[in-house]
Amino acid sequence: MTVDPHSLLRSLFDAAVASALPSVCVPPHLPEPPARGRTVVIGAGKASAAMARAVEEHFPAPVEGLVVTRYGHEVPCRSIEIVQAGHPVPDEPGLKAAERMLDLVSGLSEDDLVLCLVSGGGSSLLPLPAPGLTLADKQAVGRALLRSGATIQEMNCVRKHLSAIKGGRLAAAVAPARLVTLLISDVPGDDPGVIASGPTVPDPTTFAEARAILAKYRIDAPASVVKHLEAAEHETPKPGDPVFERTVTRLIATPQDALEAAAAVARRHGVTPVILSDRIEGEARDVGLVHAAIARQVALRGQPVEPPAVLLSGGETTVTVRGEGRGGRNAEFLLSLAADLDGHPGIWGLACDTDGIDGTEDNAGCLYVPEMAAKAAALGISARRSLEANDGYGYFRELDGLVRTGPTLTNVNDFRSILILPHDTVQA
Amino acid sequence: MTVDPHSLLRSLFDAAVASALPSVCVPPHLPEPPARGRTVVIGAGKASAAMARAVEEHFPAPVEGLVVTRYGHEVPCRSIEIVQAGHPVPDEPGLKAAERMLDLVSGLSEDDLVLCLVSGGGSSLLPLPAPGLTLADKQAVGRALLRSGATIQEMNCVRKHLSAIKGGRLAAAVAPARLVTLLISDVPGDDPGVIASGPTVPDPTTFAEARAILAKYRIDAPASVVKHLEAAEHETPKPGDPVFERTVTRLIATPQDALEAAAAVARRHGVTPVILSDRIEGEARDVGLVHAAIARQVALRGQPVEPPAVLLSGGETTVTVRGEGRGGRNAEFLLSLAADLDGHPGIWGLACDTDGIDGTEDNAGCLYVPEMAAKAAALGISARRSLEANDGYGYFRELDGLVRTGPTLTNVNDFRSILILPHDTVQA
Repeated sequence: MTVDPHSLLRSLFDAAVASALPSVCVPPHLPEPPARGRTVVIGAGKASAAMARAVEEHFPAPVEGLVVTRYGHEVPCRSIEIVQAGHPVPDEPGLKAAERMLDLVSGLSEDDLVLCLVSGGGSSLLPLPAPGLTLADKQAVGRALLRSGATIQEMNCVRKHLSAIKGGRLAAAVAPARLVTLLISDVPGDDPGVIASGPTVPDPTTFAEARAILAKYRIDAPASVVKHLEAAEHETPKPGDPVFERTVTRLIATPQDALEAAAAVARRHGVTPVILSDRIEGEARDVGLVHAAIARQVALRGQPVEPPAVLLSGGETTVTVRGEGRGGRNAEFLLSLAADLDGHPGIWGLACDTDGIDGTEDNAGCLYVPEMAAKAAALGISARRSLEANDGYGYFRELDGLVRTGPTLTNVNDFRSILILPHDTVQA
Repeated sequence: MTVDPHSLLRSLFDAAVASALPSVCVPPHLPEPPARGRTVVIGAGKASAAMARAVEEHFPAPVEGLVVTRYGHEVPCRSIEIVQAGHPVPDEPGLKAAERMLDLVSGLSEDDLVLCLVSGGGSSLLPLPAPGLTLADKQAVGRALLRSGATIQEMNCVRKHLSAIKGGRLAAAVAPARLVTLLISDVPGDDPGVIASGPTVPDPTTFAEARAILAKYRIDAPASVVKHLEAAEHETPKPGDPVFERTVTRLIATPQDALEAAAAVARRHGVTPVILSDRIEGEARDVGLVHAAIARQVALRGQPVEPPAVLLSGGETTVTVRGEGRGGRNAEFLLSLAADLDGHPGIWGLACDTDGIDGTEDNAGCLYVPEMAAKAAALGISARRSLEANDGYGYFRELDGLVRTGPTLTNVNDFRSILILPHDTVQA
């Protein structure tokens, strides 16, 4: 068996991203066009303009509509209007687009079809405060909840009850038209109610629960928010509500799909894939240490599998910034792994964001090869010191380890692959 | 298949500890007694008194000697003297014992046998500064290196060159007698040169390297230390040195052995063991998140193996204390796992220190069962809030989840096991 570790790791990442590209994952999930009525395309998210383009190219009937994406993520479309808006901080263009989207789907008939294209970032890109509330009100509560240690479920419950479009309210506006939602997931668990705060799926949570969550975490909410939650008018549509009678929701790309696509490529090269998890969270440097430890176990003990093997994981780590360096969470993860492995023979690694942008830099992520330890020493740089400075970008730039793809126009979160080859392969 | 998760997890831990008990692991590795000469037993570590007792009970010839252990870890012996000393901060009784130990083995003949019993903690328990240095000098340098980000290899190099007993110097004193060292490992990689700073094994590092390390990290060492390293008299014995001609070193218990012992018990119950790593490091709460994510992958996707399965890992995590709560690193690990899993059906966990003491508390660690989520809610306690307070001990005490063994008198570091059962088993 001959394996070029560098190109294999890059192939695995490319396969993972490809599985989530709208041009690949949208067409197989397009529904039948309506016999009579119109087809209206709506949606929001970092991948949604590219999803709209895939619809235009593959849907066998005329389409019209309006889709919101992040600044810089637009893709030229013919008949679907693309609006750019703010992410992660919502802004006025996003709010205006949300209002227009609700108008667009209101008053459709049973003959019409609405295609809703949702991907990560959709929640920020489609902000529409409930009547009487402002964007600032919602953001104040969101920030306070984030600081309080509330769970993502709790934050979503509150968010949906301060919105005029989230938590199934968009589906309510679409009825009685048919509604097909295509989802690209970037969240742990792939819950359609969590992705973009579930504008087209039932919301089992209530105003009473939203109030209880603010009380539990002693959130000092603006008066308008307190009043709105107390009034409890227009509850979100619940599971079983008639507005969902003609709705279908399809997960068309997920972190797990991306890992499976990479695993298939590994198998074709005779390398055993080990999918650790599609939803790993935690501080990037510590997650890096655990991956390094498991890689050593494969290399030295043949556990849990014999090399050649590749550890695969998805999800999203966090970085607590202490230093002055540059780099996103994937650079930080891989730098920690590099510092721990310190040139250990036979182990290579790649960590990239599938959206092509690791944090705020110009790279998707980084690639580590064992020769870097000696090269770094010769250059007088040290993985451990770079890690202290949170300087993953700087470290891998010096060592020619940056992976650049440009924005991929999709997002199934982070992708990590650690390749372990047996000694004879390494020496060959 | 019927599996009681609680008792299975406890059996796995008991098997892991049992594999490392001196009464179990010392006897098979005892050498032939000397035909003519004396048998002198020496050693240091948290397990070393129990190891001495195992020698007394199983060695087929008279023994004498001196062994140092930590306060509270003594075991009554008949002919081997047990000295108690300070750990992790070395003290005068340890220093006096080290001097006596060198005297004891000096002047032995080729007919004599020295049995050296080493386990974790031996480095602190056997402090003997090189001539002209004080304990305070050594400690000042050690603390500065710890803060500097030096690697464990670098710290060991310096430590060995400031000591009169470490880095093979004890072996030099034993020669020309025969020397058999029995090691219980609690360090990543099980390097005999690292365990207790390798008093009986060759040291490839040099005075020049020790000076370079202090320079590299800009350590402001006491003048006596600088002078000692500059003088560079009495280099540590190197690999190939004649003093090692009649020495043998045997790893008699390791973290990996403990995991394998647990894996064997799991297999007997029809549960597939997955040994992730014998040397996981990192912040306990983040390591907990990664274990939780892998456990979910097993439960929901049957990857990397189908349930019933148990994830096993060893090594030593760290805790950055932010709160006012109680608990060691195993409690913190398991609390983080509990907060993430939040009652996820079909997943149980145990995390304990094999020495029987998790941090400074009276428990070895904790056991998590999925029913705890509901029980905690009913009691008004929350895993997330307890985690914020670093209060793993308090959380699991309330929920009857403390595992208590008392000191086990051995130490192969931490032991974690996460059990995942299939749905039908769980319901049965």
